[in-house]
Amino acid sequence: MPETVHDFRSDNVGGAAPEILEAIVAANTGTAAPYGDDDWTRRMIQRFSDVFERPVQVFPVATGTGANSVALSALANPYGAIYCHETAHINVYECGSPEFFTGAKLVGLPGRDCKLDPAALDEALGLAGRGNPTRVQPFALNITQPTDFGTLYTAGEVAALSAVAHRHGLRVHMDGARFANAVAALGCSPADLTWRSGVDVLSLGATKNGAINAEAVVVLDPGLAAAIPYRMKRGGQVLSKARFVSAQLERYLADGRWLERAGRANALAADLARRLEAIPGVRLVAPVQVNMLFLRLPDVAVRALDSGPFRFYKLGRDVRFVCRADQEPEGIDALVKCVREAVAAGR
Amino acid sequence: MPETVHDFRSDNVGGAAPEILEAIVAANTGTAAPYGDDDWTRRMIQRFSDVFERPVQVFPVATGTGANSVALSALANPYGAIYCHETAHINVYECGSPEFFTGAKLVGLPGRDCKLDPAALDEALGLAGRGNPTRVQPFALNITQPTDFGTLYTAGEVAALSAVAHRHGLRVHMDGARFANAVAALGCSPADLTWRSGVDVLSLGATKNGAINAEAVVVLDPGLAAAIPYRMKRGGQVLSKARFVSAQLERYLADGRWLERAGRANALAADLARRLEAIPGVRLVAPVQVNMLFLRLPDVAVRALDSGPFRFYKLGRDVRFVCRADQEPEGIDALVKCVREAVAAGR
Amino acid sequence: MPETVHDFRSDNVGGAAPEILEAIVAANTGTAAPYGDDDWTRRMIQRFSDVFERPVQVFPVATGTGANSVALSALANPYGAIYCHETAHINVYECGSPEFFTGAKLVGLPGRDCKLDPAALDEALGLAGRGNPTRVQPFALNITQPTDFGTLYTAGEVAALSAVAHRHGLRVHMDGARFANAVAALGCSPADLTWRSGVDVLSLGATKNGAINAEAVVVLDPGLAAAIPYRMKRGGQVLSKARFVSAQLERYLADGRWLERAGRANALAADLARRLEAIPGVRLVAPVQVNMLFLRLPDVAVRALDSGPFRFYKLGRDVRFVCRADQEPEGIDALVKCVREAVAAGR
Amino acid sequence: MPETVHDFRSDNVGGAAPEILEAIVAANTGTAAPYGDDDWTRRMIQRFSDVFERPVQVFPVATGTGANSVALSALANPYGAIYCHETAHINVYECGSPEFFTGAKLVGLPGRDCKLDPAALDEALGLAGRGNPTRVQPFALNITQPTDFGTLYTAGEVAALSAVAHRHGLRVHMDGARFANAVAALGCSPADLTWRSGVDVLSLGATKNGAINAEAVVVLDPGLAAAIPYRMKRGGQVLSKARFVSAQLERYLADGRWLERAGRANALAADLARRLEAIPGVRLVAPVQVNMLFLRLPDVAVRALDSGPFRFYKLGRDVRFVCRADQEPEGIDALVKCVREAVAAGR
Repeated sequence: MPETVHDFRSDNVGGAAPEILEAIVAANTGTAAPYGDDDWTRRMIQRFSDVFERPVQVFPVATGTGANSVALSALANPYGAIYCHETAHINVYECGSPEFFTGAKLVGLPGRDCKLDPAALDEALGLAGRGNPTRVQPFALNITQPTDFGTLYTAGEVAALSAVAHRHGLRVHMDGARFANAVAALGCSPADLTWRSGVDVLSLGATKNGAINAEAVVVLDPGLAAAIPYRMKRGGQVLSKARFVSAQLERYLADGRWLERAGRANALAADLARRLEAIPGVRLVAPVQVNMLFLRLPDVAVRALDSGPFRFYKLGRDVRFVCRADQEPEGIDALVKCVREAVAAGR
Repeated sequence: MPETVHDFRSDNVGGAAPEILEAIVAANTGTAAPYGDDDWTRRMIQRFSDVFERPVQVFPVATGTGANSVALSALANPYGAIYCHETAHINVYECGSPEFFTGAKLVGLPGRDCKLDPAALDEALGLAGRGNPTRVQPFALNITQPTDFGTLYTAGEVAALSAVAHRHGLRVHMDGARFANAVAALGCSPADLTWRSGVDVLSLGATKNGAINAEAVVVLDPGLAAAIPYRMKRGGQVLSKARFVSAQLERYLADGRWLERAGRANALAADLARRLEAIPGVRLVAPVQVNMLFLRLPDVAVRALDSGPFRFYKLGRDVRFVCRADQEPEGIDALVKCVREAVAAGR
Repeated sequence: MPETVHDFRSDNVGGAAPEILEAIVAANTGTAAPYGDDDWTRRMIQRFSDVFERPVQVFPVATGTGANSVALSALANPYGAIYCHETAHINVYECGSPEFFTGAKLVGLPGRDCKLDPAALDEALGLAGRGNPTRVQPFALNITQPTDFGTLYTAGEVAALSAVAHRHGLRVHMDGARFANAVAALGCSPADLTWRSGVDVLSLGATKNGAINAEAVVVLDPGLAAAIPYRMKRGGQVLSKARFVSAQLERYLADGRWLERAGRANALAADLARRLEAIPGVRLVAPVQVNMLFLRLPDVAVRALDSGPFRFYKLGRDVRFVCRADQEPEGIDALVKCVREAVAAGR
Repeated sequence: MPETVHDFRSDNVGGAAPEILEAIVAANTGTAAPYGDDDWTRRMIQRFSDVFERPVQVFPVATGTGANSVALSALANPYGAIYCHETAHINVYECGSPEFFTGAKLVGLPGRDCKLDPAALDEALGLAGRGNPTRVQPFALNITQPTDFGTLYTAGEVAALSAVAHRHGLRVHMDGARFANAVAALGCSPADLTWRSGVDVLSLGATKNGAINAEAVVVLDPGLAAAIPYRMKRGGQVLSKARFVSAQLERYLADGRWLERAGRANALAADLARRLEAIPGVRLVAPVQVNMLFLRLPDVAVRALDSGPFRFYKLGRDVRFVCRADQEPEGIDALVKCVREAVAAGR
């Protein structure tokens, strides 16, 4: 019998939540107009409007990179700049997709805990050369929430960044691939964390939290939606049978399970962090605020994990563990045990 | 009780075939690496290699436009031209997506029954200005099979076009959004219709024939596959939980049902055509070779259909009916009856 | 002593007019801010405003393709379509540059004498699918004046086309690489031929009529100018020492010599056409309205020209002769003589 | 009588050197094929091959940004990365043109004195994710020589950077907008500073050193030249009357004057730096190695300069002075006097 693998690579290694799968099956009835002109999509948009406490426009897409690139293209000018943290997902892990869809340049700023700092943003925008044709012209700020290192912006921090951005004439995009984890951890409403804090367009990911290739471009400022259908088609992002993605997204926000799942993943990560930190030689390299841990482990521990039934990613000299809502508790226990014993033996 | 709607708009208005839905449900087990590095995708690639009788590379994507654009970008140079029929789907109905992904210009040629003619292609390529820097340089031929007007190329016709293209230094892309309908109608093998006839890359659509947002970029010449993963990521086409699309595609080709369904849809269309043609004043504007009919109807008939429980598209003065494998037979009967009675009354 | 070559290839094979060269030399004094922020450029803009009888914005560039692409990019949306005649220079001889700068698709329409027809344009735009996200959205009409085959639109014809374009929400671009030849031939004012006939942006070429790599993007609707400096810089079109191009353009329009030169070239072409047409077997394939002739010659005549001291281009089975203002009269005589004698001998 | 202005803004505020203007005038004879297929261009290419001590391909263009973008596009893949110093001209002052022409992302690295460090480059490339489709793939290194802050790489430093780049599979581009100043200051040959040090493509600027909108894309590795004509045309960079730019470039390198001029400008800058540095409170913020000075001046000095007959640029809190070969000596004296007196009075 093969050993059970404990998979900490990412939250997209998991499958679909039961109610999401049921929603797909339930949507398989009758005919529906293609490309999002269907009742499931209309109900989904209504659901988002309810949850976000205002009328929003929502476009279902299959990939997170597609959602980010479409969202940014709705804000774009083709000689422009998108400001973001230098570690932002759009800047590092999307193979230039935002640049491709927008024609713009990404300007990465440094910042503690992978977070943008309003004062530093203000200074950078002040030096950006607005009106100087030799310089790309800033048009958007990207806030990755949570960041790629699992840190969070409070609603107040988002609002402070948005205020700077808007003062300099930029629109604000939030990359919420793990938006559920942020909402669950911060305990504030989706509205508070987005449009009430100045966010204009949100990429809301459901895939990492129980859906199947289902992401939403949520346009919080309705004036920005007009060109999106064309941008999507041009980018190969318009789903033929959109109802099967819209049905997922509608069901996703229909009750509290999305936040329960995200909260459970967050709690597992906090527990794992607490237990690993207690082991000598183990050091967190970023605060654990959602479901991701970044650690520096003693070499013996890394070697022990490598030869055990564990799956995880290495980033340079650090390791990353991501917890899922359906992470098996014995996996957490086994991982902690493996590290603890390796360290003890290695001393 | 609402009247049953008879939907002839397109084959993507239907849902999922039972075994496809089962494959999605069955794939919802355990963890899997994201982005296509999973066992479902590997099994799918093996299945395609079996069906196409040679080792092929296959990339699962969610949209037909994405599949076409990715496939063409694998052949592209950015100062190039893609030759196609002037009515080709990529030229008319993809909002410039192939141009966006490739940087190339589409050159549409006329041709009877919406089909390219080898001699005309040869002449056009001879006048294309190979080596002249003021002219875009041809690099790809697109064959839409079946065409957007439901006509077919025989394997011999594909081979003749490919031979011209290859002689002029072009690669050949087949847009097979309805590939199943073509194979079912022509009764030849997928291999005969593609690489044995000179096709280098195929977009194989499963969505219109019973799958859920599942399309495949099938690279028949393995040397063309290297850059595709980057092109896909840059285009926002890489699926996070690819296993759920790969599982569909694997199941799709696993037995004869894909061809049974396509054959049934083709037969329904042939029957519908035969019965409509018998009505005075009804005229087919293109041969019915797969599951699509294009007709010129008397105005009274169009008005009658408009006020009945029918859904269909108009193209200028013509109407289009598309049949699905699960088209209800009473819908066919009702449509024929409606047209017949309207014409009789209108005389 | 080498035989004198008679060069009918194009009007850009000639050199600079004396006063243009003097303007360059005269501009070589003192320092001047780079990139067009200089007094020569300001005087040039004033000169254009005087000649065009309204305040215009003008951007000096070095190439005609650059001028067209920059002008069109000022009108562009990136999921758009530019309508033009299928033989338009931007559609055939600029290696995809307009598509590159705009992200748009060019839609070429047929039309007698290489000219667009208002009714056909109206019909095409009516079928273009405005508002349908699967279709590129028309945003600009390109009028090539004169056409690449040397035919002309009257001011009334330009106005009729512009009216159709504006009614469908398109802006109008005129490619005036040989604008001088058009104005000289039609005898109407630059204003009448452009903004009074609905043209929004004009590419005015001076290079083919006595200048050195000096072209102007003339923005007739001032509201369209804001983004052009950024578009130009991004396209590598901003001249460091712009004064040397602006000085040419200012001098070019400063008196009547630009029209005298163009008129002389037109007259030479008319004379050449008249004399060649009188030879049996010689047939004009397009009306000669400016300084270009397109002819079908007997094979013996082509062979005789090929072995004589003549330079000219062939287009398929036709030949093209272009006359310059400084064309040597003995070249015209020699060419006519060569064709006449060849035909006579060949009979 | 107006006060004489002393212009230290840039070296492109000056005019043309006498022999360059003579070359333009001399080229105005007879007809010549357009687009670079002329004898002046052929002689120019031969001249470059002589000066660079190997057969090179050379493409004349009108702008420095055009030269850089064309050169980089010859190396490009469209999902790629170009590594450069974070202050590189291509990264800051070209409004995204290199990204536009290549489709690639620029990755700016920090480095002392605005220079790239081989070890830091090696480390960055090691972490770049070669083969990982979520990451842009490095294909080119840009070396700006001299840097935008007037510092220089020795031939040995160029070779060390090229070696790192080539080991990681990158090609090397040198932005030599002020190549003459570098060669004059370093006293080594053009060949030593470029291909013998691993440079594959060079943008050689002549405009800032006495030419009129004349820049050269110098392809040192002939295998890279094939696509450049198409890239140029698509980018609107092909000059109609190329002979007038080629004639300048040929004359530019025909004798030692280009290096004499550059050396004189360098010497003036060194002298100005020496004299300003001797003034209390004046601090150089970068070593003065060519003809550019970057200084921190006391506020009183900046105010005094602002109200005097001086023209110069401010960069944040610093000022920049650029010397030209034809800088009037009394301007240098006046500037030094103004600063010295302002500082003395301000104490």
